[in-house]
Amino acid sequence: MLIHLSSWPEIDARLSSGTRLGRTVIVPIGSNEQHGPTGLLGTDWLCPEIIAHAAEQTDDSLVIAPTFNIGMAQHHLAFAGTISLRPSTFMAAITDWVASLSRHGFDRIYFLNGHGGNVATIEATFSEIYAQWSFAMPAAKPNFVLKLRNWWDLPGVMGVCNSLFPTGHGMHATPSEIAVTQAAYPDRIKTAAYEPRIASNGPIRDALDYRARFPDGRIGSDPAQASPEKGRQIIDVAVPALIRDVTAFANETLPSA
Amino acid sequence: MLIHLSSWPEIDARLSSGTRLGRTVIVPIGSNEQHGPTGLLGTDWLCPEIIAHAAEQTDDSLVIAPTFNIGMAQHHLAFAGTISLRPSTFMAAITDWVASLSRHGFDRIYFLNGHGGNVATIEATFSEIYAQWSFAMPAAKPNFVLKLRNWWDLPGVMGVCNSLFPTGHGMHATPSEIAVTQAAYPDRIKTAAYEPRIASNGPIRDALDYRARFPDGRIGSDPAQASPEKGRQIIDVAVPALIRDVTAFANETLPSA
Amino acid sequence: MLIHLSSWPEIDARLSSGTRLGRTVIVPIGSNEQHGPTGLLGTDWLCPEIIAHAAEQTDDSLVIAPTFNIGMAQHHLAFAGTISLRPSTFMAAITDWVASLSRHGFDRIYFLNGHGGNVATIEATFSEIYAQWSFAMPAAKPNFVLKLRNWWDLPGVMGVCNSLFPTGHGMHATPSEIAVTQAAYPDRIKTAAYEPRIASNGPIRDALDYRARFPDGRIGSDPAQASPEKGRQIIDVAVPALIRDVTAFANETLPSA
Amino acid sequence: MLIHLSSWPEIDARLSSGTRLGRTVIVPIGSNEQHGPTGLLGTDWLCPEIIAHAAEQTDDSLVIAPTFNIGMAQHHLAFAGTISLRPSTFMAAITDWVASLSRHGFDRIYFLNGHGGNVATIEATFSEIYAQWSFAMPAAKPNFVLKLRNWWDLPGVMGVCNSLFPTGHGMHATPSEIAVTQAAYPDRIKTAAYEPRIASNGPIRDALDYRARFPDGRIGSDPAQASPEKGRQIIDVAVPALIRDVTAFANETLPSA
Amino acid sequence: MLIHLSSWPEIDARLSSGTRLGRTVIVPIGSNEQHGPTGLLGTDWLCPEIIAHAAEQTDDSLVIAPTFNIGMAQHHLAFAGTISLRPSTFMAAITDWVASLSRHGFDRIYFLNGHGGNVATIEATFSEIYAQWSFAMPAAKPNFVLKLRNWWDLPGVMGVCNSLFPTGHGMHATPSEIAVTQAAYPDRIKTAAYEPRIASNGPIRDALDYRARFPDGRIGSDPAQASPEKGRQIIDVAVPALIRDVTAFANETLPSA
Amino acid sequence: MLIHLSSWPEIDARLSSGTRLGRTVIVPIGSNEQHGPTGLLGTDWLCPEIIAHAAEQTDDSLVIAPTFNIGMAQHHLAFAGTISLRPSTFMAAITDWVASLSRHGFDRIYFLNGHGGNVATIEATFSEIYAQWSFAMPAAKPNFVLKLRNWWDLPGVMGVCNSLFPTGHGMHATPSEIAVTQAAYPDRIKTAAYEPRIASNGPIRDALDYRARFPDGRIGSDPAQASPEKGRQIIDVAVPALIRDVTAFANETLPSA
Repeated sequence: MLIHLSSWPEIDARLSSGTRLGRTVIVPIGSNEQHGPTGLLGTDWLCPEIIAHAAEQTDDSLVIAPTFNIGMAQHHLAFAGTISLRPSTFMAAITDWVASLSRHGFDRIYFLNGHGGNVATIEATFSEIYAQWSFAMPAAKPNFVLKLRNWWDLPGVMGVCNSLFPTGHGMHATPSEIAVTQAAYPDRIKTAAYEPRIASNGPIRDALDYRARFPDGRIGSDPAQASPEKGRQIIDVAVPALIRDVTAFANETLPSA
Repeated sequence: MLIHLSSWPEIDARLSSGTRLGRTVIVPIGSNEQHGPTGLLGTDWLCPEIIAHAAEQTDDSLVIAPTFNIGMAQHHLAFAGTISLRPSTFMAAITDWVASLSRHGFDRIYFLNGHGGNVATIEATFSEIYAQWSFAMPAAKPNFVLKLRNWWDLPGVMGVCNSLFPTGHGMHATPSEIAVTQAAYPDRIKTAAYEPRIASNGPIRDALDYRARFPDGRIGSDPAQASPEKGRQIIDVAVPALIRDVTAFANETLPSA
Repeated sequence: MLIHLSSWPEIDARLSSGTRLGRTVIVPIGSNEQHGPTGLLGTDWLCPEIIAHAAEQTDDSLVIAPTFNIGMAQHHLAFAGTISLRPSTFMAAITDWVASLSRHGFDRIYFLNGHGGNVATIEATFSEIYAQWSFAMPAAKPNFVLKLRNWWDLPGVMGVCNSLFPTGHGMHATPSEIAVTQAAYPDRIKTAAYEPRIASNGPIRDALDYRARFPDGRIGSDPAQASPEKGRQIIDVAVPALIRDVTAFANETLPSA
Repeated sequence: MLIHLSSWPEIDARLSSGTRLGRTVIVPIGSNEQHGPTGLLGTDWLCPEIIAHAAEQTDDSLVIAPTFNIGMAQHHLAFAGTISLRPSTFMAAITDWVASLSRHGFDRIYFLNGHGGNVATIEATFSEIYAQWSFAMPAAKPNFVLKLRNWWDLPGVMGVCNSLFPTGHGMHATPSEIAVTQAAYPDRIKTAAYEPRIASNGPIRDALDYRARFPDGRIGSDPAQASPEKGRQIIDVAVPALIRDVTAFANETLPSA
Repeated sequence: MLIHLSSWPEIDARLSSGTRLGRTVIVPIGSNEQHGPTGLLGTDWLCPEIIAHAAEQTDDSLVIAPTFNIGMAQHHLAFAGTISLRPSTFMAAITDWVASLSRHGFDRIYFLNGHGGNVATIEATFSEIYAQWSFAMPAAKPNFVLKLRNWWDLPGVMGVCNSLFPTGHGMHATPSEIAVTQAAYPDRIKTAAYEPRIASNGPIRDALDYRARFPDGRIGSDPAQASPEKGRQIIDVAVPALIRDVTAFANETLPSA
Repeated sequence: MLIHLSSWPEIDARLSSGTRLGRTVIVPIGSNEQHGPTGLLGTDWLCPEIIAHAAEQTDDSLVIAPTFNIGMAQHHLAFAGTISLRPSTFMAAITDWVASLSRHGFDRIYFLNGHGGNVATIEATFSEIYAQWSFAMPAAKPNFVLKLRNWWDLPGVMGVCNSLFPTGHGMHATPSEIAVTQAAYPDRIKTAAYEPRIASNGPIRDALDYRARFPDGRIGSDPAQASPEKGRQIIDVAVPALIRDVTAFANETLPSA
């Protein structure tokens, strides 16, 4: 069930269905940022959206929120097309999404993330949100639980990626993520002469430092290895892994206070 | 040109193309909120996305940002599936989008809006952004211009809507917007027995007040009149109107300081 | 009853009087900003103050708060004497006024506004305030209702203004508002040679853009038409209209939750 | 020169006049809060306004801003009619006033304060404002200087107050401030049977604690001693003291960087 | 009892001990900022720490929090080694300390302050904290009380300082505070040729203004008079005064609501 | 060189010394939070302080800031003595520390962290700080570089910890950190009957959830294994590793813009 293509009575019915998955919602979350000479700017929000929507097609008992498509990408701002929230803005926005979804009765909120640069801020936000309760007097606990999962950390996914791309996987503009978008958007495949073939590595700091270190935007990767077929293989592993992971999260027993 | 399906060198080339439209960007912006018994929760962000993407297919010289899909919908929060930002969060996020896009050299930023409830906050945000320069000492002016346009205010659109739906157009969950989404998502058309056929009107305040006044979510509308064909007619008027409006904005002469 | 010239037991008694107007408060709100070559910088907060205080003299059952005299005027900052809050500051201040007044039991708070540039931010603030309840879990509703009314939108007022000034009314430094202040401060009437007689129109953006477009500060207006007598006519229409409008607001029936 | 009753060209001319007082602005600042059984709720903003306006009538070379009428009065919120900003809001608003006034070229900004409870927050705000420069790299200094003066601390004023009210002056709802408002608003004088005649003292904390300690709102004072004549005496001392104090501030030599 | 060298069950036991001091906590608070040519940068947080820890050694019934070592020192930022919070940051941090400590049941929180520049911001913070309750509806009061005491204002301390240093005590880098740190860190005593012997006085504004007025950082002081022995005398007076002051605070009777 | 025990001319001289380490500063940073039945509440800020101060004693060319002793510990707030900043407050405070230190010319700022729960927020803060430059127009880069290192991630340290505690090291209240504090504070060693000997594992969420999962505060650890001797061994490995790591950071070559 995709929230944005449903009506409110449909969501209401699902929430009242008495199933654990009916009170669990998946939020695809990513970033719109440069992905090297050929990667789509939307790669990091498209990948979790592609995987989550494919999972929903497999199992309609999943509830999928609209995609949170702009994240924390300040280090990519020297490359055109990147759109970034400051971490503080990102935190405020995630907080409001959680407040909205939990108000309706979604008590398990699962963020399927597509951007490594989002992780620290999302985790800090979870703490900011939980802190509202942790500081509360009298003591109180939230009526929801939050979970962050990067799509490449779904069980089995990284194994496939590594076997498909034993060298030149790298950290940014990886052949894995490029391949996933190629599978979904085959008419948007782009090519370039990569020089060097495998990009170099280094620390991530501000935008100008990044551009000076990584002139074409890649970090450690050789995206020329990507293909739609490989993308499909990755998706095919990710989809059942996501369903299992979300189901386990939905059914996790919480400690009684 | 859709930013999220382009690579950064493609955006860079467009920005350097020397055309005014190449430095102008359209941001579809809306809200994810209840739209009555049958309207899609995504209606308000889908409509500007549908129109903007159709315009881009007509004229590739338009540059379209990813869709800003969550807006200010606090009054709809008593209906499941609504996701809202607080106005202050919304302002921070728009500010960061503008800062990102203008940093790359987009000097005209055009928000194509799909939600009336967004208007006040977007305009307040424009003032907040401009104020950074208006307070500056020494005096300075921004290197970009902002514009907000509701899609139904594009020249000619409301005339078509009124002729299609002379009664029961209303304010929320209008047959116009429902029809536009039906044209784009014909397999997601839903039906319901509306009671009364035309919903009542009233002021908009907090979420519980809203639900008490408007029990099924509609304000003043009879969405049963919507059809995919009517939606297509609206889109067919909106698309050229958008292209003309953005082109005029891109070419507007600014006063010399 | 003017709050600032009353003692707290007097306000307490009024709140406990059992009348609906006794729990309703009018906040004159405006801006301190340039009003062309001859208009008073205080025009936009003086006009609602003049009208509200005149109404209170007519009907002491009205409760009037002190005047909120600084609003959102970033676009006027290139003209000396303008004082502006950023929208975010304006929102915080209005929020605290509402929190203070509602804490005492004022359950209807009516902002009589004198500045068009305030409207978006005031409306965004109402949403920010209501959102505290709309997001609340368990669901809760505020114990007050907010209303914004521009003084020129009081029933009958604009009709008089248009008949007094059929041409050259314009958008800023209008003869109407100048006339109202002339009626109240006849010893502060100023004159100037306006060139052109009727100022030009255009969009409102940042401060330098504004000054370049509107060199003497006016937009579309010919304030030379103002006179104290015309101001008095406007006030004489506005005062009973305000009393009726506030009374209707005070007595409006709210939906039961 | 009262800014709100002037036009922008008049302020411009004053700023360009080449005098030090022409670039100095006085901001009357206070609070709207309970002042015991008989004191006006506006006492704390009326007193500095009364004194500043009287000084301007004596010496038109003074430039007076509109009155900043709502301050930090959280501890009075259990008494009807009190309106308070949170300290953080108060800081933001003062910051914007200073940014507006300094942008026009006012390089000495003098706050004439009427509320002891404002002092800490105003001083913290001065530090917050200065910090923008103190943290700057490369090092930079503000082009303005800020000063806070309580009206009762103007040289000579407290001496008169003490001689007029040798006992029962107290800390809040003092006969001095009541008398000043009686001199200016003789038709608003109120009476009450004070019990005890001189109110008790104690610490100031939150609103309920305050009301429990000081049931009628006074702290240590016997306002029955106030009279319009005594208020006039205080004003007559305060006005020349203010003119001297502001003139000295305007002419103070700053260290060269 | 020093919190940071205790375990949580030890703190728990103290809170449950049934004594008033067991629910009272002392927070040493200061600043890390230049203290003239010879003073330690840590002087302002070391002094309250030294006195509080000495008091705890005398009377273990005192509970001492970790030292809050960075305060509001924007005016010292032109001198190397100074670390300052902006007032707004300082306020947020103090608020979180209070929320943490009060959550555990500490209902009297005593800040022993070592920096005059902190006072305004700490007091503004107390108001910000109390305001959460003062604005609350339904009316509510905090379950804790806050107190600020500068160590030099402890009864008897300034008398000793004045007798030890009848001239050249001054306002910043005073011989008193230097002496207290010399007593505690005798191996860190530094010397310099002060020119002039007694530093000049003046107002405190931004960092560059400060450095221009006070080239070596001192205000009005002659720290050459300090010695470890004099520091010991000051500490010996401060310690029992602190114990008495905290005990009185712990046992203060609050008004019943 | 410990900043807080130095004078500003000493810091100035070091900054001007022409060495890379002279412009590099180490900030010990941690948290004050429960560490199981026997661990010191200060463990997480004491450990990096102990190691950094020991390193400074070994090599005085290191510059050490005061210890940042309160971090992000919302999940521990159900245990007495814990003091936590909200992530947003923590971010603001770190930002001000960095602004202060970099203003003096420290161009490499190294945070030696003692609390895993701080990592996400510190990294988000680095992004927030860098974003000030990444968004800047015209493009600009910061004049400093930030680095975060957990003390247990210093090369060689975890190897020693694992060999000392092959089982029951765990995640919180580990025998390693307990041992380090025992080495430094041997008179504060506490004992308890742990039940179970090795605590259980689980996710970290809000404070009540944490306390329900981990009743005595430990996660996965058996701190009874700690001893001062083992702590000394860990310190002896950490100190030279810190010196090497900081030296490498100080001498790291940055890309030219």
